[in-house]
Amino acid sequence: MALRERNLAAQVVGVGRRETSLAEARAVGAVDATTTDLVEGVRAASLVVVCTPVARIAHDVLQAAAAATPDTLITDAGSVKQSIVEQVAAGAHGKRIHFVGSHPLAGSEKSGPRHATADLFCDRLVILTPTDQSLAADVQQIEALWRAVGAQVRLMPPNEHDRILAATSHVPHLLASALACGIPAPWWELSAGGLRDTTRIAAGDPELWQQILLANRTAILEHLTRLERDLGEMRSALEAADVARLTALLASGKERRDALGN
Amino acid sequence: MALRERNLAAQVVGVGRRETSLAEARAVGAVDATTTDLVEGVRAASLVVVCTPVARIAHDVLQAAAAATPDTLITDAGSVKQSIVEQVAAGAHGKRIHFVGSHPLAGSEKSGPRHATADLFCDRLVILTPTDQSLAADVQQIEALWRAVGAQVRLMPPNEHDRILAATSHVPHLLASALACGIPAPWWELSAGGLRDTTRIAAGDPELWQQILLANRTAILEHLTRLERDLGEMRSALEAADVARLTALLASGKERRDALGN
Repeated sequence: MALRERNLAAQVVGVGRRETSLAEARAVGAVDATTTDLVEGVRAASLVVVCTPVARIAHDVLQAAAAATPDTLITDAGSVKQSIVEQVAAGAHGKRIHFVGSHPLAGSEKSGPRHATADLFCDRLVILTPTDQSLAADVQQIEALWRAVGAQVRLMPPNEHDRILAATSHVPHLLASALACGIPAPWWELSAGGLRDTTRIAAGDPELWQQILLANRTAILEHLTRLERDLGEMRSALEAADVARLTALLASGKERRDALGN
Repeated sequence: MALRERNLAAQVVGVGRRETSLAEARAVGAVDATTTDLVEGVRAASLVVVCTPVARIAHDVLQAAAAATPDTLITDAGSVKQSIVEQVAAGAHGKRIHFVGSHPLAGSEKSGPRHATADLFCDRLVILTPTDQSLAADVQQIEALWRAVGAQVRLMPPNEHDRILAATSHVPHLLASALACGIPAPWWELSAGGLRDTTRIAAGDPELWQQILLANRTAILEHLTRLERDLGEMRSALEAADVARLTALLASGKERRDALGN
C-alpha cells in the first residue's frame, strides 16, 4: 500500500496462503494483483518482500529466490534476524541470493490487510542486518526502498539486532503477557490507564509471538535474567521497607523512561 | 475544576504547601481562592477532599477534621486505602469523623494544576471504601459528589481495594519501572510502540510511588509472587523450547487482555 500510494512500483503482487486475506488486500488497495502461488507471484519480480511469520521466513525467502530471476532482490520484515540470516545462508548452498534482512519497527498488535495504512512506515525506524556476504549495492537498494516509504534506516549485525530487540521488544512482550495472565476478569475494570498500557501488546497473536520468542530465546533468556534481577531488587527494597532504595530504583526507571518522551 | 465548571460548589478553596502550585491552580481556574494554611482553608468547608501524597493523607484528614465543623464531610484520592482508613480511625480517638475513603481511577503519570482538566473523572471509576463505622448518609454524599463530576462509583472494603489494586496498578508500576531500568539509553529508539506502552507509567513521580508501594507492600508482595510464578512458567517454556506450552501461555494472556479492548 505504501509503495502503490507513492507510485514506486509498476505492479505490486500480493502472494498469500488464504484467498480471503488476498481479497481483503485487493479491497483495501494494497495490491494490483494477487495469487496463492508463490512461484507464480515472484516470477517477474525485481523485489520480493517476505512478510510471513518468523518461522517461515527463511523457507519463503529460499523458495522465492529459486522461483525469481537471479537478480531479484529479497528482504523480509521479521522481528528476529540472526536465525533467518543463518537459515537463508545455509539453504542457499553457495548460490548467490540477493537477500538483506529488514526489521521495520512499525505495526501494532493488530494484523491483516484490514489494518493496513500507507503511512505505516513514516518516521519509523527500519533496521537492516546485512552480513559480510551482503553486496553493498543490495544493501543500498533495500535502504532506498524503506526510505522511499518514509522510514529512517539503521544498519547493524543480525546478532546485535537480536540482543537489543530481546530487551526492547521480546522481553516486554513476555512481561505484558505474564501480567495479563495474572489479572482475573472482574478486576480489569478496576484499573486506570496504567494496566491498559502495560498489557496492550499481550493482545498480539500467540502463534506469531511464540515463533519470535523461540527464534531469539538465548538473547531473551539473557535479558530476562537481567529483568528478574532488577525486579528482585525492587522486591528486596519493598520487603525491607527501604524508602531510600525503593525511591532510587523508581527514579532510575523514571530517568530512563523520561528520555523517551510520551 | 470539575466542581467549578459544573457550578457544584459555592466556593472552592485550594489548600497547598507551595504558593507556586496555588498560583498555577488559580491561573487554570481550578479554585476560587487559595491558602497555605490548612486550618484557615477548611474552616468554613462543608466538604474537604484531601489529595496529598499517600503517606500524608491520614495526617491531613485528621488535621482537617480538627479544624473544620463537626459535620464537615471528608474524603481523599489516595491509591491505597486500608492503611489510610486505619490511621484515620486510630487518630480520631473515638471522636466521630465524617470520613469516607475514595480512589478515583483517573489521572496520568503527569501531575500538577497545569495538567488539570474539568472532565478528568468523566466515565472513570471511583472506588469508595466505607467501613463498618461509616455513616450511610456520608457514603451517599461522597458517592453523589463523584457522580456529579461524571464518574461511576463502586463500593468495596479497603482491604479488598488494596488487594485488587496491587494487581491492577501497583505491581504493573513496579514491572514498568524494572523494565525501564534495564534498557540502556541508546536502545530506546530501537523499539516500537510496545516498549513505549509497557514502560509509560515508569515516568510517574518516584516519591509519590514509593509511598503507595510501601503503604500496600503486603498485598503487592503477594501479587508479585504470582507474577514471578507466571513469568517463571514462560521462562521454563522458553528454555525447553516448548512450543505448545509457550503458545498456551501467550494465548491465556491474550484472552484476558482482549476482554479489556484497546
